[in-house]
Amino acid sequence: MKYDAVVVGAGIIGMATAYHVLRTNPGKKILVIEKFAAPGQGNTAKSAGAYRNVFSSNTNFTLSDTSVNYFLDIHDKGVDIGLEKAGYLWLFTKEQYEKRKPLFDDMIRNGVELRFIPQNELKQILPDLNPKPDDEEAQMMGLGEIHIGVFGKKCGFIDADRLTRYYEQEFKAIGGEIKYNTEVKKLIVEPNEPIGVPWEPFIWQDVNVVGVSTTAGEIRADKIFVATNAWAPQLLDAVGIDSLIKSAKHQMFVLRSEKMDRLMHPKGLSEKEILPFTILPKSVVYIRPDVHEGSFWVSAHDGLGHGLKFEEDPKPENEFYEYNIYQILRKYLPIVDGVNPSNKWAGLYDVNSIDANPYIFEKGNVISVIGLSGSGIMKADAVGRIATAMYNGQEYAELYGGKKFKVSDLGISNRKVEKELFVL
Amino acid sequence: MKYDAVVVGAGIIGMATAYHVLRTNPGKKILVIEKFAAPGQGNTAKSAGAYRNVFSSNTNFTLSDTSVNYFLDIHDKGVDIGLEKAGYLWLFTKEQYEKRKPLFDDMIRNGVELRFIPQNELKQILPDLNPKPDDEEAQMMGLGEIHIGVFGKKCGFIDADRLTRYYEQEFKAIGGEIKYNTEVKKLIVEPNEPIGVPWEPFIWQDVNVVGVSTTAGEIRADKIFVATNAWAPQLLDAVGIDSLIKSAKHQMFVLRSEKMDRLMHPKGLSEKEILPFTILPKSVVYIRPDVHEGSFWVSAHDGLGHGLKFEEDPKPENEFYEYNIYQILRKYLPIVDGVNPSNKWAGLYDVNSIDANPYIFEKGNVISVIGLSGSGIMKADAVGRIATAMYNGQEYAELYGGKKFKVSDLGISNRKVEKELFVL
Repeated sequence: MKYDAVVVGAGIIGMATAYHVLRTNPGKKILVIEKFAAPGQGNTAKSAGAYRNVFSSNTNFTLSDTSVNYFLDIHDKGVDIGLEKAGYLWLFTKEQYEKRKPLFDDMIRNGVELRFIPQNELKQILPDLNPKPDDEEAQMMGLGEIHIGVFGKKCGFIDADRLTRYYEQEFKAIGGEIKYNTEVKKLIVEPNEPIGVPWEPFIWQDVNVVGVSTTAGEIRADKIFVATNAWAPQLLDAVGIDSLIKSAKHQMFVLRSEKMDRLMHPKGLSEKEILPFTILPKSVVYIRPDVHEGSFWVSAHDGLGHGLKFEEDPKPENEFYEYNIYQILRKYLPIVDGVNPSNKWAGLYDVNSIDANPYIFEKGNVISVIGLSGSGIMKADAVGRIATAMYNGQEYAELYGGKKFKVSDLGISNRKVEKELFVL
Repeated sequence: MKYDAVVVGAGIIGMATAYHVLRTNPGKKILVIEKFAAPGQGNTAKSAGAYRNVFSSNTNFTLSDTSVNYFLDIHDKGVDIGLEKAGYLWLFTKEQYEKRKPLFDDMIRNGVELRFIPQNELKQILPDLNPKPDDEEAQMMGLGEIHIGVFGKKCGFIDADRLTRYYEQEFKAIGGEIKYNTEVKKLIVEPNEPIGVPWEPFIWQDVNVVGVSTTAGEIRADKIFVATNAWAPQLLDAVGIDSLIKSAKHQMFVLRSEKMDRLMHPKGLSEKEILPFTILPKSVVYIRPDVHEGSFWVSAHDGLGHGLKFEEDPKPENEFYEYNIYQILRKYLPIVDGVNPSNKWAGLYDVNSIDANPYIFEKGNVISVIGLSGSGIMKADAVGRIATAMYNGQEYAELYGGKKFKVSDLGISNRKVEKELFVL
């Protein structure tokens, strides 16, 4: 049982990669191996399901902008990927805004569509927003006055599950194979010319990864893609391929309350009048409406003191909502007062602390596609095409819409990216 | 009990840092905390105890060259740091040499003293060297013919233990404190303005590392240096400071045999006629004489298939000598035939896979001095001075001899180094 390529992980990155590999290599035997029972059930399912092309790094902009173009096009063609053009709305204090002004200027030059909304206009659009929490608690928490909103137009929501299933269906339609409920336990390293004695491989042998050892036995392939997000270190580091990433936990809490309904459809922002993905000026507390369920997902950035560690099954902590997110949220959106989460979950993301751009690199027959740093869904199509170009031995990948991208720019040896300065 | 600064780790990096911090800040309360009973007993003690200024990265060259100058000067002043000016001797096949030729040209322009020794001359200097192993086994192992030797003059051996003790003595002589047998279990993160309720710190609080929790209780300091090499991830990642490094194991085997004695003093290389640190053309198998003990330390690079993982107490594996190092060694140095190790040990080093230059960066009151990638001893003095300049808020460090070094070049945000291409 030997495949041309095996893709480990049927999350959004693995499925987009598998699809583009097979699309450009019709007839090849490509297998996706996934430990869960369906695509996108790992950290893809835990994501905020949002997209933006608002990044300071030119690379991240290109990856997301071309991927979003692809998503918009399939959406226009009638594929239901749960796409909602709701926008992103960053709410900044004067100081925060002024610090970021040069980044916005660069973004606009790059073609990012931004709209700047002063406080008085924001109050008309979002009457429930309290731009100036100034009670004693707010002062203690250091909650600054919202001076301006920065609205990203080519941003919104996407159903991560449906998008992953879209790639899965396309992949299967052209002959791709998937094994679900199959966990890859390790990468198999073998000498290119085995001599058949114990203790192989020896240091004087040329070795390569030749396949994967799974709960369903060994599976061999000429090339192995590792697209396992936070699970990558277990596979890669174990065979001496530095995965370069750490795992960080993020938690999501779902709020559903009749009194919050009137937040859902503000006028004057997006065409469909859906609350954008809205980021408050403190600790990256954000609110992401789920328009179909009539609920709101909220989360926040947890800073110094919160460890970078892998957990097989990370759990959301009530205290993280109650004493952290909620305290900030209710000051800027008093309507949230008294609302408790009706649902919650936690996931991991694979952090690249160096520059927060993805890594796509090859070593020993393994192409690693990792380090998406929490913004993988919105870059998945481009990343899948670049990993594919690496597989095809091309110097440049052609992204959706025809833009060329130098494959080695996301590698290690000749990495050429700008450090992302507009991290959520 | 509050210190101006605490340095975690009394290895060579921690001790050099502590000494330079106190030297430039006389009167300050500086404490080094070490889990072992003496300085340099962790991975410093496991090192090959060698120095070289032969690096392709201009940064690594500067760090090592100025540090070596310092070591040579204290040696000349009569401090016994076990320094032996034996040189380094890289043995290359024609192909390996030609690939590295542009690097050597750059090094020479940089001021690195190299001598190129053709095969016939090598055979005169090292009559026991078999430059062309060509039996069936050698062919199977892919052992190429040694075409040339590249001899680094400003290279040699140093006693890592004595060097670390030198810094310890200097540090103590100016009032530095050290706590041995004290293990730092974790970094203490606290809000700058605690409100004294459970669940602190909250995400809306400004937080910092304020001290360390140790087996001898809590110790507080205004600044904390982490110089713990392979132990850094446990401390840093745990509080959300990405340590960026992975741990890799290296093993050392000691050979002592009367018949090998004649290898010890080749004529025509170094003034004192000591066998240089000699690197064979396959799998970085190297031999490092211990002239005082009359023995030879041998090791090798373990490639793909050997995991990057932390182990509290890594063990050397007989098989790594027997089936790997020994097989290569005895082909190029038949005199080694039949010699078994009389001693062995294993240590870890902290690998920076991205560029193999050190990281010195500050976050949340913690200055991390890590990623030495197996060549820490030879860079220790410069690295200690740069970490000190960061502590002192200086833009440039003054290295030994007066050379200026921009502190942020080894940081993360504005890192400016050349990827090291001349890794052992």
